[in-house]
Amino acid sequence: MLVALAGGVGGARLLAGLVRVVDPTEVTAVVNTGDDMVLHGLYVSPDIDTVVYTLAGRANPVSGWGLATETWTVMDELATLGGETWFRLGDRDLATHLYRTHRLAGGASLREVTAELARARGVRIHVVPMSDDPVRTCLTLAEDAPGAPAGTEIAFQHYFVRLAHAVAISALRFDGAGTARPAPGVLDAIGEAGAVIACPSNPLVSLGPMLAVPGVRDALRARRDAVVAVSPIVAGVALKGPADRLLAELGHESSAVGVARLYADWAGTLVIDEADAHLADAVEAEGVRAVVAPTVMSTPAVAASLARTVLDAAR
Amino acid sequence: MLVALAGGVGGARLLAGLVRVVDPTEVTAVVNTGDDMVLHGLYVSPDIDTVVYTLAGRANPVSGWGLATETWTVMDELATLGGETWFRLGDRDLATHLYRTHRLAGGASLREVTAELARARGVRIHVVPMSDDPVRTCLTLAEDAPGAPAGTEIAFQHYFVRLAHAVAISALRFDGAGTARPAPGVLDAIGEAGAVIACPSNPLVSLGPMLAVPGVRDALRARRDAVVAVSPIVAGVALKGPADRLLAELGHESSAVGVARLYADWAGTLVIDEADAHLADAVEAEGVRAVVAPTVMSTPAVAASLARTVLDAAR
Repeated sequence: MLVALAGGVGGARLLAGLVRVVDPTEVTAVVNTGDDMVLHGLYVSPDIDTVVYTLAGRANPVSGWGLATETWTVMDELATLGGETWFRLGDRDLATHLYRTHRLAGGASLREVTAELARARGVRIHVVPMSDDPVRTCLTLAEDAPGAPAGTEIAFQHYFVRLAHAVAISALRFDGAGTARPAPGVLDAIGEAGAVIACPSNPLVSLGPMLAVPGVRDALRARRDAVVAVSPIVAGVALKGPADRLLAELGHESSAVGVARLYADWAGTLVIDEADAHLADAVEAEGVRAVVAPTVMSTPAVAASLARTVLDAAR
Repeated sequence: MLVALAGGVGGARLLAGLVRVVDPTEVTAVVNTGDDMVLHGLYVSPDIDTVVYTLAGRANPVSGWGLATETWTVMDELATLGGETWFRLGDRDLATHLYRTHRLAGGASLREVTAELARARGVRIHVVPMSDDPVRTCLTLAEDAPGAPAGTEIAFQHYFVRLAHAVAISALRFDGAGTARPAPGVLDAIGEAGAVIACPSNPLVSLGPMLAVPGVRDALRARRDAVVAVSPIVAGVALKGPADRLLAELGHESSAVGVARLYADWAGTLVIDEADAHLADAVEAEGVRAVVAPTVMSTPAVAASLARTVLDAAR
């Protein structure tokens, strides 16, 4: 049994590689829900959807979110009504949110609904939210943004989508994390896994919320030797998203070494890209074993190869 | 200034006739919200939407609900997910519900949101919900229905759409009506109107919820001479929907006379169809003046003519 901690695109891609090299039913993906939000009354869970759509072979490879084959009838009509359309929900994607919102309102847990949606789309790994309780990633603006002066705390998608993460941040907070419980089975899965993979997701806003849920970090620490992380920072930059800037803005080093420093207490091994081979010694100086491999998952074959590297490193 | 009390299709058609013969900005339509419901997390207001879509020239003339030009991408995808699709929400129609739900969640009243939606669709009459507070029409089954044995109380759309109103009813209740307040302006509009028109809507489940909101019936009684109702029962049957059966099931007479009896305390005049000309004396025996005219609004011209008849009757 394998556990993978995943955010959005980077996590989804590594999972897509993993299912090419191991039995999918042996994999539990614990997915970030700090990005979740209610939009137009609908419960939207971006990272879970990215993971499910990717594993279902239906993710949009260009945008990194939503479905590959999509229409925009609802959003176009909503625009004519003067509605808010900065977070674009495709017509088929909307069905996911309608289903989820309806089931949650009926008393189902996010874990149950996620399992139903994954099953309905033919996904065979276990996709599990990090928590059934609300944890919301909030960011404090370090500079003025349209409609939100410096010092304002905004929700993750406001930062990520509405402001296109083109604004500096001074603080990060995971609202609700203090009282959230890991989703049922998450701690047991970490405790029993042959290997725990920390996918190349944003250390601060993808893995960060997960680590903030009481019990998760301790569970990982107890399995440190079995934890293999993949650095999402390659040659100092994030392949996607604002991880590099967020790290720098919040006082960390935007490098594989900075990632090693952040993960050192709970990850025994860090896979770093060949471009960062020269940092292997510095990573190991942080007490984390360094494994050098190609980590840029430009094709499913590279993702599968990276998955194999990670599994080998865990042995 | 004119006030029209309206349910769905019958109300919408008479309003469409009315705006052909008077200045639309002089008309306030008070619309039933007893049919409203939350579906997939979205606040759906069927009668308000039928009125707005009809006046915007975008109503589906065949189905009697939804938009004329519509696609079903979201519902089709929801079906593949195993979601509930008995209440079909078209893609463009969904934009209305997203807009409404978002605004309500942001603290706007239903009255404000309804005005925004009407304005956005170019509707010039004032479309006002009967109340900003929730009033929900509930029906008790007189016989077994699939998944709901006799004696069960079900919501209106469950009865109307899911069971296709093909089941007998033993009781009717307007949940929340006891504490609901008329939407701001409704009582004043009734008090000041040159004429109050009760559209040919279902007496029990379209006008009934409105009359159950404290203050509305008294306001109408105070203006009885100015109130002109149009019978939705023609030759003993409802032109659309279950009004005839509901009347009979709940102990009323399914005829223009039965309608007169129900409305006698607050309506001075009842317009009955030419097919019911022989009932004029019986209507008047109920203390309600009878006006005989063509009431079957098969074309906009007939609707306009009926609107003129109603206005003449109010003078």
